[in-house]
Amino acid sequence: MKAVTFQDVGRFAVEEVDRPSLNESHQVLVRITLSAICGSDLHLLHGATPVQQGAQIGHEFVGVVEEVGGAVTRFEPGQRVVASFFSACGACRLCRRGWYSQCEHKGTFGHGEFLGDLGGGQSEYCVVPFADHTLEVIPDEVSDENAIFVGDGLATAMFGAERADIHPGDTVAVVGAGPVGLLAIMAAQLFGPARIFAVDMVAERLEVARSLGAIPVDASRTHPVEALRAQTGDLGVDASIECVGVPSAIETAIECVRGGGTVSCVGVPSQVGGDFPYMHAWLRDLTFRSGWCNVQPRMRPLLDLLAAGRIDPSRIISHRMKLAEAEEAYRLFDARQAVKIVLTP
Amino acid sequence: MKAVTFQDVGRFAVEEVDRPSLNESHQVLVRITLSAICGSDLHLLHGATPVQQGAQIGHEFVGVVEEVGGAVTRFEPGQRVVASFFSACGACRLCRRGWYSQCEHKGTFGHGEFLGDLGGGQSEYCVVPFADHTLEVIPDEVSDENAIFVGDGLATAMFGAERADIHPGDTVAVVGAGPVGLLAIMAAQLFGPARIFAVDMVAERLEVARSLGAIPVDASRTHPVEALRAQTGDLGVDASIECVGVPSAIETAIECVRGGGTVSCVGVPSQVGGDFPYMHAWLRDLTFRSGWCNVQPRMRPLLDLLAAGRIDPSRIISHRMKLAEAEEAYRLFDARQAVKIVLTP
Amino acid sequence: MKAVTFQDVGRFAVEEVDRPSLNESHQVLVRITLSAICGSDLHLLHGATPVQQGAQIGHEFVGVVEEVGGAVTRFEPGQRVVASFFSACGACRLCRRGWYSQCEHKGTFGHGEFLGDLGGGQSEYCVVPFADHTLEVIPDEVSDENAIFVGDGLATAMFGAERADIHPGDTVAVVGAGPVGLLAIMAAQLFGPARIFAVDMVAERLEVARSLGAIPVDASRTHPVEALRAQTGDLGVDASIECVGVPSAIETAIECVRGGGTVSCVGVPSQVGGDFPYMHAWLRDLTFRSGWCNVQPRMRPLLDLLAAGRIDPSRIISHRMKLAEAEEAYRLFDARQAVKIVLTP
Amino acid sequence: MKAVTFQDVGRFAVEEVDRPSLNESHQVLVRITLSAICGSDLHLLHGATPVQQGAQIGHEFVGVVEEVGGAVTRFEPGQRVVASFFSACGACRLCRRGWYSQCEHKGTFGHGEFLGDLGGGQSEYCVVPFADHTLEVIPDEVSDENAIFVGDGLATAMFGAERADIHPGDTVAVVGAGPVGLLAIMAAQLFGPARIFAVDMVAERLEVARSLGAIPVDASRTHPVEALRAQTGDLGVDASIECVGVPSAIETAIECVRGGGTVSCVGVPSQVGGDFPYMHAWLRDLTFRSGWCNVQPRMRPLLDLLAAGRIDPSRIISHRMKLAEAEEAYRLFDARQAVKIVLTP
Repeated sequence: MKAVTFQDVGRFAVEEVDRPSLNESHQVLVRITLSAICGSDLHLLHGATPVQQGAQIGHEFVGVVEEVGGAVTRFEPGQRVVASFFSACGACRLCRRGWYSQCEHKGTFGHGEFLGDLGGGQSEYCVVPFADHTLEVIPDEVSDENAIFVGDGLATAMFGAERADIHPGDTVAVVGAGPVGLLAIMAAQLFGPARIFAVDMVAERLEVARSLGAIPVDASRTHPVEALRAQTGDLGVDASIECVGVPSAIETAIECVRGGGTVSCVGVPSQVGGDFPYMHAWLRDLTFRSGWCNVQPRMRPLLDLLAAGRIDPSRIISHRMKLAEAEEAYRLFDARQAVKIVLTP
Repeated sequence: MKAVTFQDVGRFAVEEVDRPSLNESHQVLVRITLSAICGSDLHLLHGATPVQQGAQIGHEFVGVVEEVGGAVTRFEPGQRVVASFFSACGACRLCRRGWYSQCEHKGTFGHGEFLGDLGGGQSEYCVVPFADHTLEVIPDEVSDENAIFVGDGLATAMFGAERADIHPGDTVAVVGAGPVGLLAIMAAQLFGPARIFAVDMVAERLEVARSLGAIPVDASRTHPVEALRAQTGDLGVDASIECVGVPSAIETAIECVRGGGTVSCVGVPSQVGGDFPYMHAWLRDLTFRSGWCNVQPRMRPLLDLLAAGRIDPSRIISHRMKLAEAEEAYRLFDARQAVKIVLTP
Repeated sequence: MKAVTFQDVGRFAVEEVDRPSLNESHQVLVRITLSAICGSDLHLLHGATPVQQGAQIGHEFVGVVEEVGGAVTRFEPGQRVVASFFSACGACRLCRRGWYSQCEHKGTFGHGEFLGDLGGGQSEYCVVPFADHTLEVIPDEVSDENAIFVGDGLATAMFGAERADIHPGDTVAVVGAGPVGLLAIMAAQLFGPARIFAVDMVAERLEVARSLGAIPVDASRTHPVEALRAQTGDLGVDASIECVGVPSAIETAIECVRGGGTVSCVGVPSQVGGDFPYMHAWLRDLTFRSGWCNVQPRMRPLLDLLAAGRIDPSRIISHRMKLAEAEEAYRLFDARQAVKIVLTP
Repeated sequence: MKAVTFQDVGRFAVEEVDRPSLNESHQVLVRITLSAICGSDLHLLHGATPVQQGAQIGHEFVGVVEEVGGAVTRFEPGQRVVASFFSACGACRLCRRGWYSQCEHKGTFGHGEFLGDLGGGQSEYCVVPFADHTLEVIPDEVSDENAIFVGDGLATAMFGAERADIHPGDTVAVVGAGPVGLLAIMAAQLFGPARIFAVDMVAERLEVARSLGAIPVDASRTHPVEALRAQTGDLGVDASIECVGVPSAIETAIECVRGGGTVSCVGVPSQVGGDFPYMHAWLRDLTFRSGWCNVQPRMRPLLDLLAAGRIDPSRIISHRMKLAEAEEAYRLFDARQAVKIVLTP
């Protein structure tokens, strides 16, 4: 079968590899019908996240159940399914507290030997371990192009929005209007805020944000914290959702919230550590949350929302290409000429 | 000034009465610019809620601050304000726990001597006691016709929706699509449900419910509980909001929720007591809530939502009339020829 | 092996029956080391809960894992375990929302063919289906006599206390000071109330309640609602936990809470339906919850509390007898000459 | 009257000053019966918190209402009262959301002109502004020595414990066993944890922590994070409460919690900013909270708990002295020869 693999820093290839097969009773083999390229795939491409030569790439995918291990109870061949971007055992101490993203036996698809040695989603087939706790059936009403967001970007956006403690009537700032930021605007809407501000420096992104109901704040032309204060009677917003990961975005997210407010970061931090305004946080009674998404508990509600037509993440897809064209797709994505690319085998 | 007053069971009149004046330092005198007729006003008209002859009627009103008592800190003459339908002291044990609707010194506008001996809102002026805890300033962006819902119907709808424990992706049944039910659909949307079902027997109401994004369930043509079970894979809805108050509606609201779900009743009960399915509730681990709205904490967020254009309750106004025409207005409303009537002085 | 079985209304017997064996891969065979008699066993004895002749009785038990099915991931032979009083599949729509007590494939131990056809705990061996979602390992520090409460009575008490929405400083009324009521006092303490009132009519029970830190209210000598009002400055308690199930107890639990308060019922209702004070509940903005315990999510935290010595439910054990003496044990228990009886094989 | 005043960096004096009097209708004059010295008073003494010469010192005090302004509704002369360490208006946007500690018109007692120009509590009389939102009546059952903790240290401890998201059965680490840390142990107990670990380097403090039910972790003899991991099966604690404010304590508090856990800081930060482990927080899905205490909403529940005898903060008082001896008291406290000193006029 075809699969995108890591060859060297700066080079992915579409290779012919062996089709994988089941070797544990908790696994399911999925025949992939759609995969997507994620910003964090670029970290692998650029060597920021180390991975062995030949590792299969891709952690966002949907497909059809091809084969089912003996201990799997929730799935059968022929079902359309979406995978979380990581597998979780469902039985360890943290899974049992609902923290699948902190699973003691977690593996991440498409991230090589260091993160569980799983297969990749940018390929034709993928083995999904602990399938009962990693996959979800896609309702008939939901297209592959919408379902694929449930396993990563949309779940991350929802996780960020939930952890922002938004209540009806609140004001919210979404810092960063890239793919995750745009999805975070959609997710934040589910909590009934009066106003959502979208902070970015790219005019086109801000325009999409506006079309999703957000109020654009162009950080290339105004100081975003001052702009947000001005729009909130000098109070600050009730909550911010940070979707970039660089220090300036985190700083904006912290500075712009009112006393007693909440900062929720989902952007992958660009640095291991950095400065934090401890006295500001203490004087303002802040709650600061950061985290990679606990996908599993959010998949079912998100699929229900998609089935009901409440949200449409597929609108941020900018390119539809073939798996065989993956190298060209990565070139476009790395050059920031694409917002979201999906690949069909 | 003109005021609607109770004359006898079955008869309200528009009378000329003395303009009221302040006699406590915590009061504010409001010059009324819009008032509305509420379903519970009919209880007064029909004698179901007893009230003395001459009592002034009306508890939904907005206006302009005319005069301010010496201990009032939040208001000044000239401000546009909306009143909660009841006054709360803000200082008793229950107010201080946030339960203004359970205030130990509560008074209800337009309900005569038995409920605090306050003035009425269907008039030209009204004295508002404990104004700091009873009034809210209306933002410029919000019309009188939208603001008037904040003090009663929309707050009640929000209270019902909040107490239904709705989470993103949930299914919700709103039982009754009268004015409060329609507002409850708007309020429930703020919690991100996948689907809202509206149960009623009147085709026109169901049509409005549909236009608000709800899925109609016509209880005149189908058994609503069975219909809701069928639409939820035989599970039942996650939450129901009951907006009528009669036993059959309460029964539907209880029967239609899934195990572990929540029933939230805001309809004024038509009977003091009645049958309750104790074994069903126990077997299904239900939460059953009932209550008249704790308006005060919901006024500011609702005004913020109105200012941002997120909800538009004024769309349910069917008749705009003059205060002098109030007798005719009540005739129409009592004959169910109007959904919502507002009156200008 | 020996097992307590139903023979006829009014008669249980200790019989010799076949030792059960595994026939599904999700099962575990447990060698029982301690079982207990529960109030609901009397419903079976008296015919109130119908059950077939020969059905094995008992749903409270601890033991040692003897044999493990192929799909079981969390257990291995030799581990000490406690069972929830019911089995849950862990995979259905309601289990996945955390509502194991509403599992679509639930079975109740010791309740015959009508409730899942499971074995009984008052015996030497029992097959536990869906073991990964029904059993919990007992820490070394926890005795069998404490652990046995985790699968039923103490979990029920905790469920009742959690659903009473108790906050630090609150006042709580526990209605009924039988075994579940006494355990509910222990559980309520975990939420930091200032005062817990225990309402009962039996002096000895009230004395035990007092020794657990509760303030006794003797309903045989005072009107309990009036007494609770008097003790709370005429306000009522913040929350009540009802542990009996008869109408008068439910009425007390409803009447004694303050406006905006919560009533949490865990007593098995003695009647299918009954009168409910709808107007009172609406005027007072009450939350009324009822339910049989969702045991599974509470087992691990309760075992951790037992391991740390924070609670000691075994102190309510009044009789320690042999399984072979079960008939005599039931005679004592039915005659109310015992609070809690445990049986060893 | 006598009052402790700031003279110069390093020197407080007990001076004779004018007795203050009311000049706003929302004020109350309190005759002080007990005051206490707080760790943050040393920041004033050492010049770390700047304050003008002659400023009155002290923000922890209880007393008797002497005189009441015209707009005050909740108090009358002769009542025993305790003050929050800061005054809050009760009417601004943040007070109305319950965030009194973020009040737009906040003043802090005993902190001079820069923080609201209020009087000091280490004196004979003090004017309390916005008294309805700053004072609380002390129940008869509660001594001055217990009540005084409600306005600062115990409220701070409770605030820290609440924001740690502790659930029954959890494990908690309290970092720092000084006065606030010891009170935090008492407060954390109100949320039903299985185990509380107290981390400190001073043997005597750890001994007091043990007597309060905590498990001591001596950071002078073991690496506290490793010790906590070892005690939790390598998982980490569910929540930590940081009560010191120095970088090493904050680092311990962050490092010791499990994935998905919560860090709640109440120690006054010793530095404006500092390093934060962004990647660690993101990988572990942490919630990090910091803040100075929102005292007002916690005063009533804490007084209820004190009245019921559930907690006894006065046990940490080490020295009882006269106001006239304040200079000697500060010498002892600054030399760390006292845990908590209270002063009577």
